[in-house]
Amino acid sequence: MRTQVVIVGSGPSGLLLGQLLAAIGVETIILERSSREHVLGRVRAGVLEQGTVDLLGEAGAADRLHAQGLQHAGISLAFDGRAHRIDMTALTGGKHVTVYGQTEVTLDLMQKREAAGLVTFFETSNVTLYGFDGAAPFVTYDKDGVAHRIDCDFIAGCDGYHGVSRRSVPESALKTFERHYPFGWLGVLAEVPPADHELVYANHERGFALCSMRSPQRSRYYVQVPADERVEAWSDDRFWDELRSRLPPQIAAAVTTGPSFEKSIAPLRSFVAEPMRFGRLFLVGDAAHIVPPTGAKGLNLAASDVRYLFAGLREFYRERSQAGLDAYSAKALARVWKAVRFSWWMTTMLHRFPETGEFGQRIQEAELDYLVHSKAASTALAENYVGLPY
Amino acid sequence: MRTQVVIVGSGPSGLLLGQLLAAIGVETIILERSSREHVLGRVRAGVLEQGTVDLLGEAGAADRLHAQGLQHAGISLAFDGRAHRIDMTALTGGKHVTVYGQTEVTLDLMQKREAAGLVTFFETSNVTLYGFDGAAPFVTYDKDGVAHRIDCDFIAGCDGYHGVSRRSVPESALKTFERHYPFGWLGVLAEVPPADHELVYANHERGFALCSMRSPQRSRYYVQVPADERVEAWSDDRFWDELRSRLPPQIAAAVTTGPSFEKSIAPLRSFVAEPMRFGRLFLVGDAAHIVPPTGAKGLNLAASDVRYLFAGLREFYRERSQAGLDAYSAKALARVWKAVRFSWWMTTMLHRFPETGEFGQRIQEAELDYLVHSKAASTALAENYVGLPY
Repeated sequence: MRTQVVIVGSGPSGLLLGQLLAAIGVETIILERSSREHVLGRVRAGVLEQGTVDLLGEAGAADRLHAQGLQHAGISLAFDGRAHRIDMTALTGGKHVTVYGQTEVTLDLMQKREAAGLVTFFETSNVTLYGFDGAAPFVTYDKDGVAHRIDCDFIAGCDGYHGVSRRSVPESALKTFERHYPFGWLGVLAEVPPADHELVYANHERGFALCSMRSPQRSRYYVQVPADERVEAWSDDRFWDELRSRLPPQIAAAVTTGPSFEKSIAPLRSFVAEPMRFGRLFLVGDAAHIVPPTGAKGLNLAASDVRYLFAGLREFYRERSQAGLDAYSAKALARVWKAVRFSWWMTTMLHRFPETGEFGQRIQEAELDYLVHSKAASTALAENYVGLPY
Repeated sequence: MRTQVVIVGSGPSGLLLGQLLAAIGVETIILERSSREHVLGRVRAGVLEQGTVDLLGEAGAADRLHAQGLQHAGISLAFDGRAHRIDMTALTGGKHVTVYGQTEVTLDLMQKREAAGLVTFFETSNVTLYGFDGAAPFVTYDKDGVAHRIDCDFIAGCDGYHGVSRRSVPESALKTFERHYPFGWLGVLAEVPPADHELVYANHERGFALCSMRSPQRSRYYVQVPADERVEAWSDDRFWDELRSRLPPQIAAAVTTGPSFEKSIAPLRSFVAEPMRFGRLFLVGDAAHIVPPTGAKGLNLAASDVRYLFAGLREFYRERSQAGLDAYSAKALARVWKAVRFSWWMTTMLHRFPETGEFGQRIQEAELDYLVHSKAASTALAENYVGLPY
């Protein structure tokens, strides 16, 4: 087989890149390790920057997002028994974020791809990338016990942290930066109305908590737990009790409890691999960088990578110029590091770090108190949360 | 003897409080452990917030400060080979800071006190505080081998971290918060013109550096060194070489070297003791809190404590109301924690922390890059640097 761009990974970044390229007549094949059902079953983030929404619109996959997504103009920061709202829209000259599950984004993009008759091979194995340091890269893989080969112009590695793309690069060509946090997020999905109409980020002596949502009828809640915690230790009752104990009284009283239909623990870490381009292989999204979920930046960073890569590929196919592709890694990484910084900062300010002791807890409270009362500091938070410029 | 307020410590906070009280007819006696010459020989900070300058004016001790102090409208942050100016005056609606050595502030206040014939006993020993939990406190001390006693209404503990005042409070009544940083500042004073007309704070892989000054002819420079470093290991030549290696080329080229006439290493730490009032004893300045010097807040915080305590004492002597004194600790601590937070943040962003590795270094560079390009983030830095409202 031959195609123009092989996309490794059928998550939102791979699918989004595929739709954008399809719209300008560039042919893609997506190779996915998992089944279609598995990809669609993954529960992930749910807060989209305006730039991400715009790019999904450009890809023709934003109709349901526009109909069902919830526009949020603010968030609340809760500490010391009270919640303080940050009016992001007022502070950023009218910007907002949109709450819409990553699962739904993936479904919308996948349906668009399927409706257009574009090719995705699910449940592929032994995906191997060749020749991306030269002019004629190709990818081999097995499907149903049969070996295949696809020749291509470029390979987009959209296959996440554990994917084959980054691992295909010689170690000596990669520089990595990493930070593990000594805790994870225990998350619950429940078919109950959310405690607040916007997100509430809570700093508490017992640990961080987050009130989020997927829709007006579906709540997404999180509590910080030790890194080695087992999800089996958490009954629904224990979860609801712990959640409410970390929230200010008026928010805790507004929590509607109910049976959880998803419960899982995600570790928190920061990771960046540099550069993001190796000849004709481009790393996109989680394949190159991981952020803790505190700033809601993971999916949005993947989308901004796609924006830069798509611009580079469009320039290449339309004008035969390599300039955009040559600039990809530096452009993407500049924005990546800012979001990595913001996510690290939100995480550091809001979570309980046993090793920093009571001094650390009081510094957090002083920072939060300053933040919610300073227009400049609130604006700095808001401009990052809604998304820095491209 | 009897006086209205015994002030323990003849540093700038004790002297300032004494002058303010004298101006409203309240009598004070200052007890100082060291000699007058020792007090005047101590080299300390040199950046005054506008509120500190104003308070020194109210105390009648700002004539030389107004004549010789250098008004600074900005600072520069240097990283990744370049310096970026933060225009504090533009960002804060016209505020600035004044560069004027703490040594000079102390001399001005001491001369005022002496000219007014107010009493300071230097070289006192065995200073002991009694009865401050009741209505009739008194202080005993030895001077030239003779024991003395002063009865008073109030005791102001202005005697620094190592002084007797905080140690006179039962441990069970104090809550302390502390953070030690794994490094110190090696500082040099030299009779040479400064490298820049404003302060330059430099983040560098080799460690933090600061270009400061005391006057247009006198430079004050610092480099971060390990906590256990010995000053004897640093010749002037080694210092100048190390300083220049950490500065952007155009700043390094502007450093005029010369023989140092003061060279010392100061450890960095954060410390807060709560509360700051115990009956008729009030802790002021370093007796209650220490900040790392990165934000230039130590002397300014002491002055804001003095402002709150003076307001409370004035209310007491004029109106026989305890309200201001009752509010002292909470008011002072609210501002203290904000400055402790700011100083911790500046320290964390600008110094090399070996334990955070390359991730930490890149996060710092990302934060600095964001900071100097975001008006909101620059404003947040500027409003803290010039001094938050009282």
